[in-house]
Amino acid sequence: MRASKKLITPMGRRRRSSLVTPKEIHISGAEGLYRESEVVKVVKKYIERALNHPRGKADKIVITIEEIREKPKKIPALPLVTIENSSPIEGEKIARKLLQSEGISKMAVNKTFELIKKDSMRGAAIITVEKGKRLEPNRKRGVRVSRLGISKSASKQLSARLTRHGINNETVMEALILASKVSFCNNVIAELCVSDDPNYTTGYVASKGLGYVRIPHIKSKGNRRGGRAFFVKEGTGIRGIIEYLERRPVIIGEVSLCRGIISFDEILNRPYI
Amino acid sequence: MRASKKLITPMGRRRRSSLVTPKEIHISGAEGLYRESEVVKVVKKYIERALNHPRGKADKIVITIEEIREKPKKIPALPLVTIENSSPIEGEKIARKLLQSEGISKMAVNKTFELIKKDSMRGAAIITVEKGKRLEPNRKRGVRVSRLGISKSASKQLSARLTRHGINNETVMEALILASKVSFCNNVIAELCVSDDPNYTTGYVASKGLGYVRIPHIKSKGNRRGGRAFFVKEGTGIRGIIEYLERRPVIIGEVSLCRGIISFDEILNRPYI
Repeated sequence: MRASKKLITPMGRRRRSSLVTPKEIHISGAEGLYRESEVVKVVKKYIERALNHPRGKADKIVITIEEIREKPKKIPALPLVTIENSSPIEGEKIARKLLQSEGISKMAVNKTFELIKKDSMRGAAIITVEKGKRLEPNRKRGVRVSRLGISKSASKQLSARLTRHGINNETVMEALILASKVSFCNNVIAELCVSDDPNYTTGYVASKGLGYVRIPHIKSKGNRRGGRAFFVKEGTGIRGIIEYLERRPVIIGEVSLCRGIISFDEILNRPYI
Repeated sequence: MRASKKLITPMGRRRRSSLVTPKEIHISGAEGLYRESEVVKVVKKYIERALNHPRGKADKIVITIEEIREKPKKIPALPLVTIENSSPIEGEKIARKLLQSEGISKMAVNKTFELIKKDSMRGAAIITVEKGKRLEPNRKRGVRVSRLGISKSASKQLSARLTRHGINNETVMEALILASKVSFCNNVIAELCVSDDPNYTTGYVASKGLGYVRIPHIKSKGNRRGGRAFFVKEGTGIRGIIEYLERRPVIIGEVSLCRGIISFDEILNRPYI
């Protein structure tokens, strides 16, 4: 193996006993791109995290280390902002307006919220911007964005910026990295994400134009439903998108502006200032 | 998680480029039962091993850490011996005679060697001692013996004993642990194993009566065919056996006699002296 970047994915699972059948709950997943020399240290961190996860200690941890031969594409992170919001009803309205401002049809947005609320999805759905048609070939599995990471220097800088706004945690960091990779894809117009973690009620809408817009209280505490959708141009070839999202290595090499809480009007009028 | 034992299985895979389709080669698998406090250290060891494997550096490593709630059953290791042999033809004859001495029919032995030579098997086959009938429900997958390990003190002692005979390596250690778990199963009469590693030409026959009998040169160098078979009593319930082999945690707590190279006659006449 060369001094190439490596991909690590730990997945913690907790089994819940039941009288009928044992049930597995997926607690968390994470991944990154690292140099071979960093692998052992990173695996250690992931294992410790899985054994001390706030959603419950994992009793099954699966770690996959893969050699990536293709040189990762360096991209900048999306600029980040948090929108002022305090209720799920308002939160959903904000997400809808943001998506529609990016050209996603009302029908497509409706279908997506229906989907997210109906069931907890594993991977992401790929939905066309006009007709709201789902494109991913395996709906149960969805699409899993993979092979993404952040350089050490960008990670340090991002941590510092997030700290200023009191949101320097792995959840925000990892979601921002993912959203940045996704939005860098030409055919993706926007992303909507609502966590399936019942304790994590902040969702986001992301796009090249809006950046990464965090929406607190997009769902009520205790709600286990959530999901992720990528909106793509009508007629987009699904294979190319999946190839990019799942296989192409992308690394954040540079951080953009991270702002605190602003009002909805502000973001729509001056997204980047 | 309590201070329970943990199971770790790393599997290294190397991908070989080909003009038609990429091909995955399984390089090695290993596992053990460990205390939670040891997990990180053990994972480190497994990763380093996968990255420096003589069969080629793995470019995909899968590590599974599972919490075992059931207290592992402590058993002794089988006594170990190496039989004098220098040719594959002789080696196969020795294995056949050993198996037949344990009551396995000629037909069952023939069928098993046919199976092992035909294709490289992933898991083990379960074969009845008289009719040579295969019992495992999924023939392609076979049965994978899991949840097995060795205590620290037994491991040290075993290392010391194997060192005396120049065979203190992980391959012998892990195979002996596996064979000891398998032979401890009431319904298993004997085991035959030929490695699919083209560079590892020592196979073995194991049973409660014979112990773990290593047979050098059971196949020619460069031969990638190999497999493992467990011979069980006619009419044995397959579910119970699979449950024991794959799920029941067993740990070697004590080491038995380890001898050097002896002749075939010696082992048949005085297996344990």
